[in-house]
Amino acid sequence: MTTAAAYAIDAPDGRFAKTTIERRELGPNDVLIDIKYAGICHSDIHTARDEWHGTAYPCVPGHEIAGIVAAVGSGVTKHKVGDRVGVGCMVDSCGECSSCLAGEESYCLRGATMTYNGRVPEEVQPGGVTFGGYSTQVVVTEHFVLSIPDGISLEQAAPLLCAGITLYSPLRHWNAGPGKQVAIVGMGGLGHVGVKIASALGAEVTVLSHSLSKEADGRRFGARRYYATSDKQTFRELRSRFDLILNTVSADLPINDYMRLLALDGTLVMLGLPDKPVAVQPFTLTGRRRSLAGSNIGGIAETQQMLDFCAEHHIGAEIEVISADRIDEAYERAIASDVRYRFVIDTATI
Amino acid sequence: MTTAAAYAIDAPDGRFAKTTIERRELGPNDVLIDIKYAGICHSDIHTARDEWHGTAYPCVPGHEIAGIVAAVGSGVTKHKVGDRVGVGCMVDSCGECSSCLAGEESYCLRGATMTYNGRVPEEVQPGGVTFGGYSTQVVVTEHFVLSIPDGISLEQAAPLLCAGITLYSPLRHWNAGPGKQVAIVGMGGLGHVGVKIASALGAEVTVLSHSLSKEADGRRFGARRYYATSDKQTFRELRSRFDLILNTVSADLPINDYMRLLALDGTLVMLGLPDKPVAVQPFTLTGRRRSLAGSNIGGIAETQQMLDFCAEHHIGAEIEVISADRIDEAYERAIASDVRYRFVIDTATI
Repeated sequence: MTTAAAYAIDAPDGRFAKTTIERRELGPNDVLIDIKYAGICHSDIHTARDEWHGTAYPCVPGHEIAGIVAAVGSGVTKHKVGDRVGVGCMVDSCGECSSCLAGEESYCLRGATMTYNGRVPEEVQPGGVTFGGYSTQVVVTEHFVLSIPDGISLEQAAPLLCAGITLYSPLRHWNAGPGKQVAIVGMGGLGHVGVKIASALGAEVTVLSHSLSKEADGRRFGARRYYATSDKQTFRELRSRFDLILNTVSADLPINDYMRLLALDGTLVMLGLPDKPVAVQPFTLTGRRRSLAGSNIGGIAETQQMLDFCAEHHIGAEIEVISADRIDEAYERAIASDVRYRFVIDTATI
Repeated sequence: MTTAAAYAIDAPDGRFAKTTIERRELGPNDVLIDIKYAGICHSDIHTARDEWHGTAYPCVPGHEIAGIVAAVGSGVTKHKVGDRVGVGCMVDSCGECSSCLAGEESYCLRGATMTYNGRVPEEVQPGGVTFGGYSTQVVVTEHFVLSIPDGISLEQAAPLLCAGITLYSPLRHWNAGPGKQVAIVGMGGLGHVGVKIASALGAEVTVLSHSLSKEADGRRFGARRYYATSDKQTFRELRSRFDLILNTVSADLPINDYMRLLALDGTLVMLGLPDKPVAVQPFTLTGRRRSLAGSNIGGIAETQQMLDFCAEHHIGAEIEVISADRIDEAYERAIASDVRYRFVIDTATI
């Protein structure tokens, strides 16, 4: 058993405070990581505040982890001490089901083990609940540890481990590339990375954002067009335009207005999770053979592919690095969309 | 101008009665067809009764037409007098939009011209509204006239022109075939043809029907499994099972129960059109990268492919042939699901 410093929250309405947590002994296939940076994802906020229910306290969020390998187990072959590595939303999966065997660990039929707030046996994590990246160290089985290429700084790489793969996976799955019209709904932590990746994949990217306030950024990230969804004209002008729409917004949207922006055989992919059901008019589907789909991060091999792709295309998240004592403030600002575009905790401040 | 005998309805609550309608003069690209059989589709009922609104009266429904070529225009090359031919849901489209150029006339961006109750210029159809197949003759531009192979009787082929292509197109589009688990929801006019085609394509077919009353038929048509959706256990047992679910039922279904029957990357395709929006829980989509889609008949080339496929595999609709004076009665029985599985009007009785 080893200990690590961490920032934890004790109750849904609590505040983050420094604490000490236990990490398991290094097993033969484990990697001990000195965490350098941890991104703040909206999921962290939902979980810390128990908005999705089922949060175990104390809770240490963080599933956008970048750091350096400090030690490896005797059987580890994928990583060595000193390597630049990352950990995303998952730290384990069954490894045996059809999804895992297909490299789709995020769709593990028995449920992947989430990086934080995941229920696990005591030997996997003392206390029975996983603790995330708002911490100085973490122990993760090597298969779930990604290599961060030299081309990306650790702090810019951290958010790619969740936001990056959440956008990259559906962009690849639905064949975003040259000749494809892709819309990204929302220009936040997820959306801005989506614009960069989709553009680098060669797709023609349009941003659909509430207002035009981030238009200059959007174009800088590679968007060819930028529309305000607060303007009704947007929905008339862009009707039947897109092959793929990635919806990064968790708020309830007038979904049929967006579905009608899809061309023949177009797909709208939900990446956020609105609380309420999405009410689709069947005719908006049948009239153009459209699809409404959902996607959930991506597999480990694909996450590595994403990191390599981002390094090759000089893509990193746009970040604001904060000290750990400012997590509560960062949560408030993230909720108010007052960040361009992702907070990253410098864990040296823990 | 030429005249034809037909059965028409004069008002939403009217009854069908024999009348005489006008058909346009044969243009250079037109085919005059002696209609032999016309299937009765649920769309006919909805339109005849103005349940979808916008019905022009008198209305002559019928878009499952099989007959013999009686005459061809000077420029017609695709068909000749005496040929066995069929006409489905469309009789024209713009021919110039991206959908038409891709052979997807049913998704014509300007809207395909429907076989009946379609608004057209006077020169296309005297009166400005198309009349369908409950009639002795029809004039259709050659591109929209299909060849019925010798291997299928005209009366069994008629329903394939709508029901057949409505199932064949999504089965092909979503790659139903060997190794794929396909469910057909509903064992009616559409569903029973879907079971036959999906089985012939090599997919492993399961029928999801309200009760088990048609199980013997379903298995005879090729289904490997047959479940009653009135039994809650069905939804537990089949969870995450299917690659493709084709929903032929227009009634509101508990859609999330059905979505959860989809495996990773599975798609549920709406073929019917419920009145109300379909309320999907986002998590049922994201949890397995599932899709909810819609499909609308199919293109002309694909319709021909379907007819050829059905002939090759000895697939025809299961029908009950009726005389034209029994249309009203047939409508009532169709609504009560009291037909196995499609009514076809013998137009010799008009």
